[in-house]
Amino acid sequence: MLTSAVETRTEPSVVAFPAGPYQFTDVMAAARRIKPYLKPTPLREYTSLNSLVGSQISVLVKHENHNPTNSFKVRNGLAALTALAPENRKRGVVAATRGNHGQGLAWAGQQLGIPVTICVPLGNNPEKNEAMRGLGAHVLEQGADYDEAIEIASELVETKGFTLVHATNHPEVLAGAATVSLEMLAETGTGLDAMVMPVGGGSLAVGALTVAQVLHPDVEVYAVQAAGAASIHNSWHAGFPVSAGFPLTIADGLATRGVYELTFPTLQAGLTDFVTVTDDEIARAVQVLLKTTHNLVEGAGAASLAGLFKLRHRLAGKKVGVVLSGANIDQQTLRTVLDLS
Amino acid sequence: MLTSAVETRTEPSVVAFPAGPYQFTDVMAAARRIKPYLKPTPLREYTSLNSLVGSQISVLVKHENHNPTNSFKVRNGLAALTALAPENRKRGVVAATRGNHGQGLAWAGQQLGIPVTICVPLGNNPEKNEAMRGLGAHVLEQGADYDEAIEIASELVETKGFTLVHATNHPEVLAGAATVSLEMLAETGTGLDAMVMPVGGGSLAVGALTVAQVLHPDVEVYAVQAAGAASIHNSWHAGFPVSAGFPLTIADGLATRGVYELTFPTLQAGLTDFVTVTDDEIARAVQVLLKTTHNLVEGAGAASLAGLFKLRHRLAGKKVGVVLSGANIDQQTLRTVLDLS
Repeated sequence: MLTSAVETRTEPSVVAFPAGPYQFTDVMAAARRIKPYLKPTPLREYTSLNSLVGSQISVLVKHENHNPTNSFKVRNGLAALTALAPENRKRGVVAATRGNHGQGLAWAGQQLGIPVTICVPLGNNPEKNEAMRGLGAHVLEQGADYDEAIEIASELVETKGFTLVHATNHPEVLAGAATVSLEMLAETGTGLDAMVMPVGGGSLAVGALTVAQVLHPDVEVYAVQAAGAASIHNSWHAGFPVSAGFPLTIADGLATRGVYELTFPTLQAGLTDFVTVTDDEIARAVQVLLKTTHNLVEGAGAASLAGLFKLRHRLAGKKVGVVLSGANIDQQTLRTVLDLS
Repeated sequence: MLTSAVETRTEPSVVAFPAGPYQFTDVMAAARRIKPYLKPTPLREYTSLNSLVGSQISVLVKHENHNPTNSFKVRNGLAALTALAPENRKRGVVAATRGNHGQGLAWAGQQLGIPVTICVPLGNNPEKNEAMRGLGAHVLEQGADYDEAIEIASELVETKGFTLVHATNHPEVLAGAATVSLEMLAETGTGLDAMVMPVGGGSLAVGALTVAQVLHPDVEVYAVQAAGAASIHNSWHAGFPVSAGFPLTIADGLATRGVYELTFPTLQAGLTDFVTVTDDEIARAVQVLLKTTHNLVEGAGAASLAGLFKLRHRLAGKKVGVVLSGANIDQQTLRTVLDLS
């Protein structure tokens, strides 16, 4: 379906990128499965935000922070869990994650009555552990670091028959994340000129590309990474996977260390451009969103707007969608952001 | 309808208070009129919030901050404007307000193509003026204080034929505010034991009483005012209107100076109890909501939870609804809240 939709178009501006990790029809199927559990999130425009961005850009903010667990990750968790066969539902799922993916998965498991185990390293943020436990997940605190937590999760797949739900390298998770763009383009039609997507693993950006290719091939999709966790950005510009150092950014939702096989080829083929933003730029975007939209935002949730600030001369006069992907900022980081002059 | 529904009940626990400023059927009509423009807001429970409140209370948070303009006031504006006769729509409406009512009315006017004029005193918060202008309202900055702004609004009613939309003393505004409780009780059925409502003018609390009397007469409705703006609270306990001093509270949405004729009789007859909370208690409730729900909250939006903290021994083991009524906190106040130890 995705391929044929591209082939029937004649405009030379359409870049046909290789078939992605999933098809547009998979996104539609994911949207149907998650519909009973999640309402579409609002897409809103704020005059005061437009004024601050300037360059006569109309900024449309997709409020993924309005979801349960305050991030788009509930879509991913629900899409993955609703696709499981009955016997796998019964056995349960496992993931190694410290962040929003764990909460999204736990929430989805609670809705569907599917046991969820989350592996976190020793010393993981107790607030995040509590949030996942509060959603009924079994939180296993073992292993010295994230890599050891992943090993423990893999062992549970072997010994307990759990299904592993990776935060990125999982086709149903990716189809779930793509429903963000599906809702945006369903609402704007072809009225949107560009979308600026934050990249941790790349699920939102690949979702935008996959959905746009069918619904609105002329929309430009830009990606943004944190400068301190820029391995996918660097690889994109190099044209091949480049390893970067240990990720270091206040946008912990973007703190990934390398490319993901299921998302990188599509990003490489489809994105118009890929930029980075510094922690200071992210913090200022958090401040701007607090002030103009009165929504709480985490670093990763403001990266999209920070990227738009960087691209604003290039996108002058356009209508641009950004994703406020999550709101799970801790109070210490929030205080730091507010104290910026 | 309200009266007959009460008369047909036989439980002695039902206190039949005098017919209010509007009937339950008016709330249903308002709900039908606003439905094309507003989605119901989420009602959510947070394990971490329950733990902090303690006393085995289940706290259900009504997220009115998810509305456009970040407060329940869009319901009021829409309910009032959709009820206008065509000739009055054409002429337009006016209100004297410095806060969320102005934004809600401006947003509703923008949706419906009805001209909205907002009168504010000279020196009013420029951010709030900009927000209202951003929503297409004509903001008239005249008069030394709020009372003079009211006079100017009244003159415009005379000279321009505008319809005055008061923030509280207006039956359709009150019916709009009551849709908050309509949604809450429609979702919980008779599973809710109590509701704790913040009182500025009293529209939310009267809404809870009016809707509960028909849908769930056994639910207890409690009201909360800021200790620094407690005239309605003091009047309620005295049994007659008592004037208090100039209102002084960080919860500017609650900063009213006296009782309102359209809400006071119903509050007097129907509330189970009425408590006050200090600014420090409000600020701590803002902090708790930030931490446990990751939603931005203004002082008035946290008063309901602050009141529940005060009532928690009395409400031990119960399921209690609170309203996060709005999120329009300024950054200076937010910083102050976060700096509380």
